[in-house]
Amino acid sequence: MTHQHTMTQARLEADRERLNRGRMLISCPDRAGIVAAVSKFLFEYDANIVQSDQYTMDPDGGMFFMRIEFDMAELGERLAQLKKDFAGIAESFEMQWRITRVCDKKRLAIFVSKEDHCLVELLWQWQAGDLDAEIVMVISNHNDMRDYVESFGIPYHHIPVTPDTKAEAERRQIELVEGKADVIILARYMQIISPRFIEVYKNQIINIHHSFLPAFVGGKPYHQAYTRGVKLIGATAHFVTEELDGGPIIEQDVSRVTHSADVNELKRIGRTIERVVLARAVQWHAEDRVLVHQNKTVVFN
Amino acid sequence: MTHQHTMTQARLEADRERLNRGRMLISCPDRAGIVAAVSKFLFEYDANIVQSDQYTMDPDGGMFFMRIEFDMAELGERLAQLKKDFAGIAESFEMQWRITRVCDKKRLAIFVSKEDHCLVELLWQWQAGDLDAEIVMVISNHNDMRDYVESFGIPYHHIPVTPDTKAEAERRQIELVEGKADVIILARYMQIISPRFIEVYKNQIINIHHSFLPAFVGGKPYHQAYTRGVKLIGATAHFVTEELDGGPIIEQDVSRVTHSADVNELKRIGRTIERVVLARAVQWHAEDRVLVHQNKTVVFN
Amino acid sequence: MTHQHTMTQARLEADRERLNRGRMLISCPDRAGIVAAVSKFLFEYDANIVQSDQYTMDPDGGMFFMRIEFDMAELGERLAQLKKDFAGIAESFEMQWRITRVCDKKRLAIFVSKEDHCLVELLWQWQAGDLDAEIVMVISNHNDMRDYVESFGIPYHHIPVTPDTKAEAERRQIELVEGKADVIILARYMQIISPRFIEVYKNQIINIHHSFLPAFVGGKPYHQAYTRGVKLIGATAHFVTEELDGGPIIEQDVSRVTHSADVNELKRIGRTIERVVLARAVQWHAEDRVLVHQNKTVVFN
Amino acid sequence: MTHQHTMTQARLEADRERLNRGRMLISCPDRAGIVAAVSKFLFEYDANIVQSDQYTMDPDGGMFFMRIEFDMAELGERLAQLKKDFAGIAESFEMQWRITRVCDKKRLAIFVSKEDHCLVELLWQWQAGDLDAEIVMVISNHNDMRDYVESFGIPYHHIPVTPDTKAEAERRQIELVEGKADVIILARYMQIISPRFIEVYKNQIINIHHSFLPAFVGGKPYHQAYTRGVKLIGATAHFVTEELDGGPIIEQDVSRVTHSADVNELKRIGRTIERVVLARAVQWHAEDRVLVHQNKTVVFN
Repeated sequence: MTHQHTMTQARLEADRERLNRGRMLISCPDRAGIVAAVSKFLFEYDANIVQSDQYTMDPDGGMFFMRIEFDMAELGERLAQLKKDFAGIAESFEMQWRITRVCDKKRLAIFVSKEDHCLVELLWQWQAGDLDAEIVMVISNHNDMRDYVESFGIPYHHIPVTPDTKAEAERRQIELVEGKADVIILARYMQIISPRFIEVYKNQIINIHHSFLPAFVGGKPYHQAYTRGVKLIGATAHFVTEELDGGPIIEQDVSRVTHSADVNELKRIGRTIERVVLARAVQWHAEDRVLVHQNKTVVFN
Repeated sequence: MTHQHTMTQARLEADRERLNRGRMLISCPDRAGIVAAVSKFLFEYDANIVQSDQYTMDPDGGMFFMRIEFDMAELGERLAQLKKDFAGIAESFEMQWRITRVCDKKRLAIFVSKEDHCLVELLWQWQAGDLDAEIVMVISNHNDMRDYVESFGIPYHHIPVTPDTKAEAERRQIELVEGKADVIILARYMQIISPRFIEVYKNQIINIHHSFLPAFVGGKPYHQAYTRGVKLIGATAHFVTEELDGGPIIEQDVSRVTHSADVNELKRIGRTIERVVLARAVQWHAEDRVLVHQNKTVVFN
Repeated sequence: MTHQHTMTQARLEADRERLNRGRMLISCPDRAGIVAAVSKFLFEYDANIVQSDQYTMDPDGGMFFMRIEFDMAELGERLAQLKKDFAGIAESFEMQWRITRVCDKKRLAIFVSKEDHCLVELLWQWQAGDLDAEIVMVISNHNDMRDYVESFGIPYHHIPVTPDTKAEAERRQIELVEGKADVIILARYMQIISPRFIEVYKNQIINIHHSFLPAFVGGKPYHQAYTRGVKLIGATAHFVTEELDGGPIIEQDVSRVTHSADVNELKRIGRTIERVVLARAVQWHAEDRVLVHQNKTVVFN
Repeated sequence: MTHQHTMTQARLEADRERLNRGRMLISCPDRAGIVAAVSKFLFEYDANIVQSDQYTMDPDGGMFFMRIEFDMAELGERLAQLKKDFAGIAESFEMQWRITRVCDKKRLAIFVSKEDHCLVELLWQWQAGDLDAEIVMVISNHNDMRDYVESFGIPYHHIPVTPDTKAEAERRQIELVEGKADVIILARYMQIISPRFIEVYKNQIINIHHSFLPAFVGGKPYHQAYTRGVKLIGATAHFVTEELDGGPIIEQDVSRVTHSADVNELKRIGRTIERVVLARAVQWHAEDRVLVHQNKTVVFN
């Protein structure tokens, strides 16, 4: 099958180049000496920092965030020791931290309903080698997209949802993803996710909302936008929390509309914003560029 | 004074070219034959249509909106007769309508508080010949901008506002503008306008709100935006109605921000959006490009 | 097959609503009375104008352009007579003109090389019902996309091109499209089209160039952009003329890039601009919104 | 005078907060250990890094760029020693470097011709406290803006330029700026700068070109844009080199235009892009966010 073939080649090549590329993520209370300690540590491991971003939220007594990409010979073999050695530094600075190999990709499960544009976009980006993650399954409450998804060699699970079967459906979903997927993408899934699910996948469920949040929270945002007569419509990718459409925002974008656009035209224009915004958010999360602090994100891109 | 001189020349020249340019605005229930009737009428007057825009809201039994610019010899002398003759057509189609000469400019009164950026923008656009209106006065509850405004030859009225004097202050404002200004621009005026004032200047008071409405209605929108962690901030120019920040939207725009922008940085970025958005809205309204229907605008631009 | 099914339903429904919707396109030397004559003509046919756009290029002795959408009972049966009757008016105003039924869609042939993103976008837009045209075939100098294209029920023709076989390949292409396709879309086809082909499909071949023309004409525009250090990259959809990348521009857009983007990253970002810009241009051309005058376009949208 | 008063207050306040804020700029061949050495050095001085950006151009044997903002007690008294101590590290890494106090602001001389919009913008941004630099003089080949500029307390020098007096005029300009201004801003100055002048102010002369470079190099770019029929117009701020409009680009932006915009309308829309783009570039350069490497810029913002 053409799709799989092309995709696999592009990705294998990219991956080979990055077997020794590592990533370090740090959040901690700000204080002097963090950068010095971390960079000295990496230097002593002969690691070369190829990219480094940092941000201090509220310099007086605030939070410090850092993301480093580094190259280090034989990273695979030395990763466990690297982590062990870093734990001491991390403790002394009260860090939340993670060190990973870039080639250990996040595994995504994509949830979708009837609207396919966000799913199509993610699959295309993935196949083009632009989405640095594994797509391990697609789960849908409809069966429409099965052929298309399976043509990429990706398993498709049809789990119908009705008010009566909702709890059971979610139980089956969790069963499917648990231990197999690291991140859940709600690609216009249009079903409320239960608190229990959100708890298990904390800051790992990305939803695309079809408005420029916090404008038009809730249902039928394009109808709301039409009624209010806005001159720009937008979309918002955010982590899902218990508060409806209230979680940390990862990315937003807008497009200009005129008085002549009716609700269908708003939807049409909006579809392109939605898929672009979601794809960016997923890509950044896949590359560990998104750090969450309280209800906000720090995005290093 | 340099400012006045340059401004006057540019505007006089532009005006001379347009002594015979007219504008026709129409709103009415949609039905067949409107365009035919109107264009035949203008043709019989030897008027040449140089620009025409129309829009039908909801083609089945909806509303029809039209804006025409035309050139007609001796428009000044013939305008009264033109209007009289058009009244019959207008009545038969139940039109709301207006025919004006382009050289009869709208007279603006600008209300401002301490933040000067929107006022500076409007004055600069006006002086550059880009704002096709008269600025007949500036009213402020502070005295800070007097010298600057008066250097353009524009009267400046300082009317302090306190909770106690608010009613009296507004009485003086109305006294100043009534019969002298056609449009009120709230260029970051930051005071609530009373229902009575709004009634007198219906769809003629333009406010700039420093958020992408309907997100962040009310006070301190940049603080609200910071707290919510949005990735774009915006501004909205709208007609003032009794509902706070709820009137018909004329124009909106946004600018990208990152996690690293604190409230002051949001304000700084926002100032440029605010002044550009307000200037566009005022310019369009000055050129009769904005038609209001219920709580929405039709903008022909 | 899912794709075809969904697509067909959405389109059939939209089409049924528009059996009596017509479109009129006019270009002619500007003079008084055009709008009056045209609108009176349509009124006498009991046609209801649902959308009308006009533009006068250079009001003193310039060109007049108009696009009208109208509803008219039994348009199918009456179209021939309508055209016949309009010919007289058209002649008296020296018009270039066309009247069509909206349901008589343009037939597109898409040419593609190895890069698939523009093709994928057009197919997705078409399937979503957003591209109001028929896609009658895909022609490629590679065989890679056959399965994907055929899964939509669209014929796929593999015509390899080498320096030696170029003339013969083009002969076969013309044979395939002539009489079957109205418009040729070069969706990153990357081969020069011969003057003879361009002559046959005058202003009917749309190319997507991967730069913000006229910057970076010719080959490897992303390399050129990287070398020049631009802060925005873009894409341009234009009609193909004999002058390389010099034809009338239909649509352009740009995206912000930073110093940290290497050529591959520019390409990645650029792919999304390219496909969005091409899709817009094709859609507008499909809906007869693009009029060409000399080397420029008038786009009514 | 109102202007000066407001401006001085806002700036004094901001400055007081930053007496101990320093900035370090580094460019050098990339190799392991740079960040470790620099951050250890600052840590040993008890400096707290509040912002740090770095970029490695071409990771294999490429260039390393870094910008750090740090707070350090008694920076004023200790700066000389800090520099002396850093020289050793700098030498071992072959760095080009600079350490400055943030309160030691760049001194700008603004060159302007008749078009005032860029000058007005810079003065407004400066007065609003958004431009972190001193404006030490304005030089113009016209006298029109004297009153306006002097109302801000800024010296205005009128140096007429004719083909005959060009050399002498430039001699006088250099006399005025040498030793008094660090940076020259060509705010639509519209005169070619001599190679000698460029040599003295290498990478310290910022020009605003009124097109999206490299499209429309040279004169009358809006006419060129109109003739080519582009759908976006832009502006470019760049450092001046001997190659006309060919120097390193700092910032660019664009705005959408339609077929209906004539050259005057393009100019009008363009003025707002020009002033916003120039103001951003000047601000970033004032804050040492722009590093030049060969013919490209690294912009940390």
